[in-house]
Amino acid sequence: MKEFIKDKEMNYPDTKMFNYIMSELNARNVTLEGMAKVVLEGQKRFLPNLTLKEAMDSLEDTLHKREIMNNMSIGLVMDDMATKGNLPEPLQSIVENDLGVFGTDETLALGISLFGGSIATTNYGSLDVHKKGIINDIDKDTSRVNTFLDDLVGALIAVVEGKLAHQYA
Amino acid sequence: MKEFIKDKEMNYPDTKMFNYIMSELNARNVTLEGMAKVVLEGQKRFLPNLTLKEAMDSLEDTLHKREIMNNMSIGLVMDDMATKGNLPEPLQSIVENDLGVFGTDETLALGISLFGGSIATTNYGSLDVHKKGIINDIDKDTSRVNTFLDDLVGALIAVVEGKLAHQYA
Amino acid sequence: MKEFIKDKEMNYPDTKMFNYIMSELNARNVTLEGMAKVVLEGQKRFLPNLTLKEAMDSLEDTLHKREIMNNMSIGLVMDDMATKGNLPEPLQSIVENDLGVFGTDETLALGISLFGGSIATTNYGSLDVHKKGIINDIDKDTSRVNTFLDDLVGALIAVVEGKLAHQYA
Amino acid sequence: MKEFIKDKEMNYPDTKMFNYIMSELNARNVTLEGMAKVVLEGQKRFLPNLTLKEAMDSLEDTLHKREIMNNMSIGLVMDDMATKGNLPEPLQSIVENDLGVFGTDETLALGISLFGGSIATTNYGSLDVHKKGIINDIDKDTSRVNTFLDDLVGALIAVVEGKLAHQYA
Repeated sequence: MKEFIKDKEMNYPDTKMFNYIMSELNARNVTLEGMAKVVLEGQKRFLPNLTLKEAMDSLEDTLHKREIMNNMSIGLVMDDMATKGNLPEPLQSIVENDLGVFGTDETLALGISLFGGSIATTNYGSLDVHKKGIINDIDKDTSRVNTFLDDLVGALIAVVEGKLAHQYA
Repeated sequence: MKEFIKDKEMNYPDTKMFNYIMSELNARNVTLEGMAKVVLEGQKRFLPNLTLKEAMDSLEDTLHKREIMNNMSIGLVMDDMATKGNLPEPLQSIVENDLGVFGTDETLALGISLFGGSIATTNYGSLDVHKKGIINDIDKDTSRVNTFLDDLVGALIAVVEGKLAHQYA
Repeated sequence: MKEFIKDKEMNYPDTKMFNYIMSELNARNVTLEGMAKVVLEGQKRFLPNLTLKEAMDSLEDTLHKREIMNNMSIGLVMDDMATKGNLPEPLQSIVENDLGVFGTDETLALGISLFGGSIATTNYGSLDVHKKGIINDIDKDTSRVNTFLDDLVGALIAVVEGKLAHQYA
Repeated sequence: MKEFIKDKEMNYPDTKMFNYIMSELNARNVTLEGMAKVVLEGQKRFLPNLTLKEAMDSLEDTLHKREIMNNMSIGLVMDDMATKGNLPEPLQSIVENDLGVFGTDETLALGISLFGGSIATTNYGSLDVHKKGIINDIDKDTSRVNTFLDDLVGALIAVVEGKLAHQYA
């Protein structure tokens, strides 16, 4: 997708990674617009004039951060392997059934949320408990394993909320 | 208060610190029972048989953790100084009015929540956004500055929720 | 291995997971004794009377924590997949060559270190920069990809150091 | 100090806070140049062409981040109160003597380090254990209580190291 080629193609494959993640997210019906709607809904009390386009741009910009992309890609790979039944036991059973207090999905998500300051961390926490919009859609989708995806998307949204709060507050 | 003297009185003043914090919390109408009710409400979906006494015991036990006590005491001192107008400017105005994206209250709270694993961190995040029970009471109390208190209490509750989840889940 | 069967075998496969991790660690020459030696070396200034057995027991006990096991198992699976060349690109190249500022290894390790309080987090940070003993051995081993392993082991050691510090300090 | 007036003077007192912190740091002999030297020393393996001016500019820029300023100011106030003997007991004894496993200094520092990603968190951890340059000077200065200051300065340096690593790596 041409519009994603923003970074200079250096030794580090930033652009390839960004394209990989966007393509994996789209294959799971997770779009910038779907995520931007959750940002708008969450921030309307504080930023009533925020537009969908601004939220989408901030999401796309944030998704270019290398460490955020890396954490997301690991979660996407884990969900994918669990969907195919390819993880070693007992990890396969645990991820497939989102058993007990798993924690690694939340750890990767917290690693992402760190890039938005403490407000992003608390907003991610709230989104993890009260699943809104696209996060709820992911949670309800039983066609594949999404143990990591809802947390990763929630954290990404929270980082954008944190960045917007720091920018406008 | 006799019932709080549990630790051996060593060089490190653990017991004095615990008594100081309990006395400061009580002076702000924050009781073990009030906090335990939020734990029960939050966990009733997962732990329907949890009793108020178990939640209170876990809160009291958790409050003995030295690093948790230290983070709480700093927050209590800051709220107290802000109430008295004793902080240097511009910190006085910021804390007194809980201005903008402050973050330090959340930082200390996150430091507490770490002791309950990632689930405590997300639960604290949720409590920080959707203020329940005693946390709402603290937030509404205008008789003094409570910029730190609601976050500290939320984090303590979240740690207990995390510990109970790990124990029973 | 009989000595590892400590947990009641419940619905959640804690014992299977513990055995899986111990067996994977041993296959990579990472033993409780090797890790305990780093604990002793790191803590000898503060806890001169700490024995190897105490450190090994604390490591084994800590390794039973479910969230710690889960984070470790994800890292072990990722290293294993990268060794076999089974990750999707560009993740395969990034993990295989430990490229640039990866971050996910450190995120999982920080998730583990949280269980030992802030002192564990700083000790893990120090071990990540100054690789000691078995962590150095892992870093030097070129027979397989160990991008995650050195961080996971460092974090586990740091949690035990944090727990011992809180217990004895 | 004219050169610090960069922000638009809005309702939130960002510029006042920045000037307050620079003036407090300078009163403790902590200068941008002293901190920049630690950055250069720490990064010379990775960024051999980094100049002192670039490091100083990045430090100054990072110090304008509101949440970082807030965490720093709380630590500065705590050290100042402890120097004057104005904290309530037992907190006064604990902070004055940097007793046991305190943790709050590290919590505030970790809150700062979050802004540089996981690499900043591990670099801060390393600086906290192996005190270099100006951090060692702060640690050795017995003329006042510096329980918080060494951690805050270490975290600020680590954030800049993380930012430079993400920028150039």
